[in-house]
Formats: sequence, C-alpha cells, structure tokens
Amino acid sequence: MDDDAAFIEQCRAAVERRLAELTPDRAEHPRRLAEAARYALLSPGKRFRPMLTLLAAREFGAEPPMALDAACAFEMVHAASLILDDLPCMDNANLRRGRNTTHREFDEATAILASVGLLNRAYGVLAEDEGLTPALKTELSRRLSEAVGFHGLVAGQAMDLEDRGRDRSPADLELLNHRKTGVLMVAAAQAGALIAGASEEAVRGVGEFARCLGLAFQIHDDILDVAGGADLGKDLGKDAGMATVVSVLGLDGARAALEGHLEAARAGLAGAGVGKGLLAPYVLALFEARKAAA
Amino acid sequence: MDDDAAFIEQCRAAVERRLAELTPDRAEHPRRLAEAARYALLSPGKRFRPMLTLLAAREFGAEPPMALDAACAFEMVHAASLILDDLPCMDNANLRRGRNTTHREFDEATAILASVGLLNRAYGVLAEDEGLTPALKTELSRRLSEAVGFHGLVAGQAMDLEDRGRDRSPADLELLNHRKTGVLMVAAAQAGALIAGASEEAVRGVGEFARCLGLAFQIHDDILDVAGGADLGKDLGKDAGMATVVSVLGLDGARAALEGHLEAARAGLAGAGVGKGLLAPYVLALFEARKAAA
Repeated sequence: MDDDAAFIEQCRAAVERRLAELTPDRAEHPRRLAEAARYALLSPGKRFRPMLTLLAAREFGAEPPMALDAACAFEMVHAASLILDDLPCMDNANLRRGRNTTHREFDEATAILASVGLLNRAYGVLAEDEGLTPALKTELSRRLSEAVGFHGLVAGQAMDLEDRGRDRSPADLELLNHRKTGVLMVAAAQAGALIAGASEEAVRGVGEFARCLGLAFQIHDDILDVAGGADLGKDLGKDAGMATVVSVLGLDGARAALEGHLEAARAGLAGAGVGKGLLAPYVLALFEARKAAA
Repeated sequence: MDDDAAFIEQCRAAVERRLAELTPDRAEHPRRLAEAARYALLSPGKRFRPMLTLLAAREFGAEPPMALDAACAFEMVHAASLILDDLPCMDNANLRRGRNTTHREFDEATAILASVGLLNRAYGVLAEDEGLTPALKTELSRRLSEAVGFHGLVAGQAMDLEDRGRDRSPADLELLNHRKTGVLMVAAAQAGALIAGASEEAVRGVGEFARCLGLAFQIHDDILDVAGGADLGKDLGKDAGMATVVSVLGLDGARAALEGHLEAARAGLAGAGVGKGLLAPYVLALFEARKAAA
C-alpha cells in the first residue's frame, strides 16, 4: 500500500471510530432504538461522504481531525436516508450492504425512529463541534438543511415515489438523481472546503465536482441494477419498470453518460484551480474498483 | 377580550402566518410532499410550543418578533413528531385535530418524508434566523437536538412502543411522559428565555416550569383518553391495555397528580424570580379551557 492509500485508510478508520463514539451506546435506554441506530450507522461501508469532507478539507490545507465531526454528521444523514429508502412503503428492500435492512432486522417503527434520531443527531454533532466557530457551524447547519430538505434528499425520494412508472425526460432524471444522491455529496465536499477556509470560487468548484460525481454514482447504480454482479449486497432488479438513465438511454448510452459526468467532475475541480490533493484520485479509484467488481 | 388575551391572540396569529411563509409552497415540486407538509403543519392548532417560546422571551424583555422564527421551529418539530406517532406501525391513528392523520390523507411514504422534511426544516429555520447571533443559533440548535434525540422525543416514542402492555412504575411513567411531551416544551420555553438573554438561573426556572407542565399535559391526555369528551378531534381509547398514569394511580389519583404538577410548575417560575408576565396565566387558562371542554 503506498502512502496515499495508507493515509486514506487512516482517515476511513478515524471516521469509523468517531462514528461509534458519537452514536448512543448499546447500554443506553431505550436499548432497541440505540441498537438499531448503531446497526444502520456502523455497518461496514466506504464512508464515502465523510471521506469527501476530509479530503476536500485537506485539499485546502486543513488536516482531517479538524473536519472529522462534520464528516461524521454527513454519514449519519446518509445512513438515516438509507433506512427510509428501504422501508416497506418505499423501496421495500430486504438487503443492504449484504445484511438485513434495518426494518427487517428490528421492526418498522424502530427503524423509522432510528432514522429520525440519526438525522437529528447530525445537527447535534455540528452544533457541539468545539473546533469550529459558531458562524461556521451555523453555515454548515444551514447548508445541511438545504441539502436534506424539501429541495434536496427528501424531495428526491418523494419525486422518485411519485413519478414511478411514468416516462421521464433526461432533464427530469438528472434533477431526480441529483436530489437523491448529489446534493448530500455536494454538501459534504463543500463542508470540507468551508472548514479549511477555501475561497468562494473553490467552494463552488468542489461543489461542481461533487455534483457530477453524484450523477455518475446514480447512473452506475442504475447500470449495476440491470447488469450488475452478485456481491453488491443489496436487492437487484428493484428498478424494473421504472424510468432510469439506463431505460432512457440504453446500457451503452448510460455508460457514456457516466464517463461524461466523471470527466466533468475532474474538470470542475481543475477549473477552480484545485484538485492537486487526494480528492480526485480517491474518487476515481473508487469508481474503478466498483466497475471491476461488477 | 382584555389586552392580555388580545396580545396572546396576536402572537398566535403571527406564528400562524410565519409558519405558512416558512413551509414549502403548494406550487413547488414535488407537490404532494409540499402539500402533506403544509397539511400537517398548518392544520388549526393552539401553537402551544411557539407560544411558550414567545411568552418566555417576553417574560425577560424580548418582544415576540425577535423569537418568532425559533418559535416556529418548535412547532415544526412538534408537527413532525405527531405525523410519526400516528403512523400504522406506531399508534395507527386515523384522526388528529379532527381531520385525517397525514398518512390517511396522503400515504405512508409521503407522510414519513413530510415529517423528516419538517424536522429538518426546523434546523434550517434556526440557522437562517437573521435576528440571532451565530453563538445563540448554535446553542438553540444544540438544545433542540438534545430534546429531539436519543434521550428525548425519539427515545420517548421508542420507549412507549417497546414497553407497551408491560407494567410501569410511576418513575418509569414519569420519564416516559417527560420524553414524549416535556422535553420539547422545556426546549421551547428555554429558547425564549435564552433569546431574551435571561440568566442561567432564570433559564433553569423556566425549564422546570415547562417540565412540570409537560407532565401535567400528558396526564391530562391520559385522563381524556379514558373519561374524555367527544370533541378532542382524535381517536379515543387508544391507551386501552397500556400502562398510563390513570391505570397506575386511578382517575382520582391522576387528577391529583395533574394538580400537583401544575402547582410545581407555578412554583418553578416563582422560585426563579420570574413569572410576572403572561407565561403562567396563559398556560393555566389553557388548562382550564381544556378541563371545561372535557
């Protein structure tokens, strides 16, 4: 493992440890709620959103520990959103990351409460972060609320459910995919840049990078759902009958769109005069690994 | 209507108007989500938690407009919690405030997303409030997260579901009732005091007032569920078979406990040298009106 890979693994391990500290202990009451929150949050994962925060912070000169709690807040929001997406009244999924989804392992009510508890805890973690100024904490909290809310993640999930089965234009699909995946990646990456005191232009560039990345991820998920390998650890074929980039553009068209978004992501970073750190290589290596596994 | 009553009605109307402004417009996309959020939040209500914030602020010399947005944030959290409590996998309620519960009027997925959207919006409203310093906004956000989270509202609902049907000691019941009702009232009232720059001792006194009030409210709800009138606008008899203060202490014992909590609430205010404003009279008048209606 070279130095960069070792550094990245250190960051991931730091996120893992800090997440465990920031989540209610199993011994706490009510125990079942705490267990469900830990189950959903601490299951093995790439910790992709926290890594975006940490590597974006480093890109502008802030060492990872400074951005660690904010990074963890984004993973909490992500875990919360996955719990809801999997619910019987939404995607009705049985498997996630190779294990039972939270409502299957516990029950629906406990899963919903764990999700709300994790989203809510993310704001507490931001507010309690002693390394950041109140003005910065307020700004991160405001941006997180924008990313999650009625124009962000929550809206994306609602659009996905509302329009299911209907035809979707490529523009509609892009908005849907951005809200379902991109907004939180943008907020996570920009949080790192903001914590490091990056310029407005640089924050915009990092945001554009993450926006394109989110679109690439969503298309990649759609491709895997149709053509994918067996070890994704989640239910496949869930999108049958739904309009996705694959159903609209075909498999080859989707692959071309994916490459286009990755190219635009790189250009977003470079255009803003950033991207000399580990952010771009980390993300691109992740994509290569995903493609190789499929 | 005397001057105080007119002032209180003005505050309530101001909350009503501001809530409508702070919630996504019906014309916004996805429309069904926005409609569900508005349905749940803007249905007629006493706006009790926002009134606690506004009247506590005034008790210490801050005029209501200064605390208006923070007050609205608490109503958003309250509305979010009611949506979840009513879900089929929780209390499975059909009626709330005399109308269909949100999942009955829309659907389960939309109701859950509206709830999460409203909770999340509360943090956005706090972060965006231009009248408050970043340090104060951070403190309010931190306290809100405590009140909602794994030791607050969310924990209360989980405890309620976990322990249903089991015997409960009076101490267990008090913790449950505090988490289900009191914690958010405490946070709402203390927010008003903090916005007005009240002393630590005064903030504690207002908190003790609201804590006792929350217990009184929960007991009153339990009494109404058994002995209650017809125009509560919600399902009755939902608690049958559950341990409540009424099942543990009997109807007369519960009524005595209620009076004891109201007395302690008044003493909490007076002991901290506050309570010369409208906070106590407003709350006690509300209780009298509720008792008269039952």
